[in-house]
Amino acid sequence: MLLIGELINCTREKVRSAVVNRDGDYIRDLAARQDTAGADYIDCNAGTAPDREVEDMAWLVQTVQEATPRPLSIDSGNPDVLRAGLERHRNGQPFVNSVTLQKEQPDRILPLVREYGARVVCLCMEDAGLPSEAEAKLRVAKALMERADAAGIPRENLYLDPAVLPVSTVPQAGRACLEAMRAIKAEMPEVHLMAGLSNVSFGLPARRLLNATFLAMAMAHGLDSAIADPTDVHLMSALRAASLLLGQDEWGAEFLKAFREGRLGEPK
Amino acid sequence: MLLIGELINCTREKVRSAVVNRDGDYIRDLAARQDTAGADYIDCNAGTAPDREVEDMAWLVQTVQEATPRPLSIDSGNPDVLRAGLERHRNGQPFVNSVTLQKEQPDRILPLVREYGARVVCLCMEDAGLPSEAEAKLRVAKALMERADAAGIPRENLYLDPAVLPVSTVPQAGRACLEAMRAIKAEMPEVHLMAGLSNVSFGLPARRLLNATFLAMAMAHGLDSAIADPTDVHLMSALRAASLLLGQDEWGAEFLKAFREGRLGEPK
Repeated sequence: MLLIGELINCTREKVRSAVVNRDGDYIRDLAARQDTAGADYIDCNAGTAPDREVEDMAWLVQTVQEATPRPLSIDSGNPDVLRAGLERHRNGQPFVNSVTLQKEQPDRILPLVREYGARVVCLCMEDAGLPSEAEAKLRVAKALMERADAAGIPRENLYLDPAVLPVSTVPQAGRACLEAMRAIKAEMPEVHLMAGLSNVSFGLPARRLLNATFLAMAMAHGLDSAIADPTDVHLMSALRAASLLLGQDEWGAEFLKAFREGRLGEPK
Repeated sequence: MLLIGELINCTREKVRSAVVNRDGDYIRDLAARQDTAGADYIDCNAGTAPDREVEDMAWLVQTVQEATPRPLSIDSGNPDVLRAGLERHRNGQPFVNSVTLQKEQPDRILPLVREYGARVVCLCMEDAGLPSEAEAKLRVAKALMERADAAGIPRENLYLDPAVLPVSTVPQAGRACLEAMRAIKAEMPEVHLMAGLSNVSFGLPARRLLNATFLAMAMAHGLDSAIADPTDVHLMSALRAASLLLGQDEWGAEFLKAFREGRLGEPK
């Protein structure tokens, strides 16, 4: 599993305030904690206000790189913001988060992905919105892959996200995502699967339990990367358990290490 | 999900001792606690010693029925023991746990299942042992269904158990079970799927975490019943979360009720 740490996101009030006030200590601490907790990438979302997102992203990427050698996920739908992040990225292969099938997005974002040799989250969203049925998700995923092929991006750099909707508003949303994941892997075995897990539990209590449970189910359907909170003990415990149960953790080495280090959460 | 509470089993030293010493209070308490925790059936395993299993089962079934109105799962591979339990069963439709494809088992046990109108766990085991590959599990499952058909047992009374092996000895055991579950449901949609979950974690630490994680994955592959410990908070939390995430818990009624009553475990 490849894990993108999601905590540095300006939709979170404290992060927004830290970015606006150039509070480097707060940001570096958040980056370091996600690194220590096991994030493979650190997401950087500088969505404070449209007129300042470019300079905020530039500052954010530089600041985060002072705290961690992990590569970053540059998180914006604005190509200028993505470029500002990508051109300052020094920690290996960056992630672009994300491209959708909406309007000019593929034409404007995929060339950047190619130019910087980045990995890219391809979110199953089109002009009509976020498809809720598995079949529609698969259709959009295929279209995104074809656009990426045409842009010259290697398929192993594609991370298709079927777009997780909240089960509180769409009761069959979880099932539809799992079916879409299986279908995408069956039709496009070279691509990766990605998910923004926490959407599934929006509007419900016990969200950590729901997110962790959904992670395990999704891994059993081929999910091999996720955007999530690596400091969430419940989630990381489910990740370690699911890896072992799916035969992806040879001799249980990672699971047993996490157990010895007291990192596997048990319920109260 | 249909849940069979597994705690009254003579492989557990305290239960064995209580059965041998006819300690009705201990057994009734264990039955009542599983009932309260949400078990749909209470398993009764009286496997103390072959020469006394018939009389032990008779006592056990009568004792458990003094504590709960839930139906019982009569747990033995010996047809005489099964009959001793079945003929004393008063709490509705009993479960027979289990029949395998070994030797004379189908011929001796399936007629009893039919006679008592019972549900039956069909464990994917044959003379050669427990198959570890998904394909072999499916083959044995089909053969068991054919034997049950021939014995005149309605398919909706069949609970096919693909036989969960420990991932500590067979690293691909979890994956094989999940694949077998999907294949069985695809080929035999009328039957139910059953699993003895806790085998998967045998020989490993943090077993409650592993069992709960495997339950969620298995439910996402069609599992609709399990033999497990209903007093295990981690397991029951995963069950409630998985039901909601799979669209099986309308309006999240059961999940929200469990949350309000403080029954959803969160990690320490």
